[in-house]
Amino acid sequence: MKRSLFIPDCKKLSAVLPIEVRFSEVDSMGIVWHGNYPKYLEDGRENFGKKYGTDYMSIFNKHALMVPIVHMQLSYKKQLFYGESALLTTTFCDHPAAKICFQYELRSVPDKQLILTAETIQVFMDTDRRLVLNTPPFLKNGK
Amino acid sequence: MKRSLFIPDCKKLSAVLPIEVRFSEVDSMGIVWHGNYPKYLEDGRENFGKKYGTDYMSIFNKHALMVPIVHMQLSYKKQLFYGESALLTTTFCDHPAAKICFQYELRSVPDKQLILTAETIQVFMDTDRRLVLNTPPFLKNGK
Amino acid sequence: MKRSLFIPDCKKLSAVLPIEVRFSEVDSMGIVWHGNYPKYLEDGRENFGKKYGTDYMSIFNKHALMVPIVHMQLSYKKQLFYGESALLTTTFCDHPAAKICFQYELRSVPDKQLILTAETIQVFMDTDRRLVLNTPPFLKNGK
Amino acid sequence: MKRSLFIPDCKKLSAVLPIEVRFSEVDSMGIVWHGNYPKYLEDGRENFGKKYGTDYMSIFNKHALMVPIVHMQLSYKKQLFYGESALLTTTFCDHPAAKICFQYELRSVPDKQLILTAETIQVFMDTDRRLVLNTPPFLKNGK
Repeated sequence: MKRSLFIPDCKKLSAVLPIEVRFSEVDSMGIVWHGNYPKYLEDGRENFGKKYGTDYMSIFNKHALMVPIVHMQLSYKKQLFYGESALLTTTFCDHPAAKICFQYELRSVPDKQLILTAETIQVFMDTDRRLVLNTPPFLKNGK
Repeated sequence: MKRSLFIPDCKKLSAVLPIEVRFSEVDSMGIVWHGNYPKYLEDGRENFGKKYGTDYMSIFNKHALMVPIVHMQLSYKKQLFYGESALLTTTFCDHPAAKICFQYELRSVPDKQLILTAETIQVFMDTDRRLVLNTPPFLKNGK
Repeated sequence: MKRSLFIPDCKKLSAVLPIEVRFSEVDSMGIVWHGNYPKYLEDGRENFGKKYGTDYMSIFNKHALMVPIVHMQLSYKKQLFYGESALLTTTFCDHPAAKICFQYELRSVPDKQLILTAETIQVFMDTDRRLVLNTPPFLKNGK
Repeated sequence: MKRSLFIPDCKKLSAVLPIEVRFSEVDSMGIVWHGNYPKYLEDGRENFGKKYGTDYMSIFNKHALMVPIVHMQLSYKKQLFYGESALLTTTFCDHPAAKICFQYELRSVPDKQLILTAETIQVFMDTDRRLVLNTPPFLKNGK
């Protein structure tokens, strides 16, 4: 059975991160350049990771694994301007294969308008850069 | 009828751009950081645009339109290391709505291995930041 | 009399900002890429600006002025690694001409080792992009 | 005898690199964000390095050395807009200590106006991240 993206069977583990738009992140239209959102998503993953022990550093140091992104998609709903603030919610989703899936929702503050939805998929790679085909125990059983 | 992504009915207008991986673009694993590929895609679009008259500057100056990205998806197939070279092919695809769709294929040089596939969708926005709902004539009839 | 850099006649207005090194900011040696520090300095200026009313947005909205950087220098004392934290102190310095001068000191946390010293000089430019030759009153008399 | 910056006793080895301003490199004023110039300088050094065999990769692979930046200074003379082109001249300068010094001059095309001058100083570090105190032979005797 193929798993549909965005029809999540999530465990609903999530973390919320405040985002402040920096001057260097906006383009000549005064809005966040679309290519800067992947940086926000990584901030969201790392913020989630610090809460649940799945940040890059912990996964590498404790499990000798790297978790490169293999898929990323972003839907831009509304523009975010310099000086504006937003809240990024990063939610962990179950994945049948040995993959990590996160979904993201970015909403403006204080009016809660939807700015962006996104999804990333990561795989596990050992220190010889070989793909790990079974979900590592730490992800199955919690950290 | 819903249009499927990646089952393109493309006109097959395309442009090819050489990419040289910069030192500042790789991460601590020595590979291009996943969040730097959107920059390559924009380089590809602008390279396409200079060939066919659809670069940001021409669209803005001739047609008073901006073309913000509303959707972007990237599939990472293979890692690209510092010092490596690649070729980015940017292909224009017909879209039934008033949107611009590009598909991208990045292959390593000289061994032509597939590094990345991607797709972006852009809309038309006038100088008052209002969405333009009809495909502008210049896109229908060529430039 | 020529004013020497780094022999400051500072008013000693300053602001301190915590810096967390992001994964995307380190290079293939695992340390912050030297070209990412200007972003930290801008974060420091904006943090100072929010405390004292001199952030880009306030200066533009209240005084119709832009404050582009005309000089920047950075001395790298020690490397900062992914996952490390630091404190950035941004200090305002008097300048005899119509310029804004900031000095910066970045120290690691918790061991307070000196990572970087830096200085930036900004000028005032009106909305017609003409240089403003007299120090604006708001800077002389406080905000 | 202290060596003055910008009073160069250069060997006058230099390399010239065309720069095209990317959309993602300009800020909300439509000009290249000041913090993006270090990237241009690195492009200039690498371009010089490919001509003279001193690029990061060659130095690391042939001599097991890294060459981190320890000092960088930039003077911004004129603004560079999106869509504009420029030529970056990177010039190697002798340095009495075990350091690499480069000076940079960026001029607009075709009117040759001075956009930026800059200087960087690099040191030699072995793979154990220890400072190398004597100028490596390859730099003294040419590559």
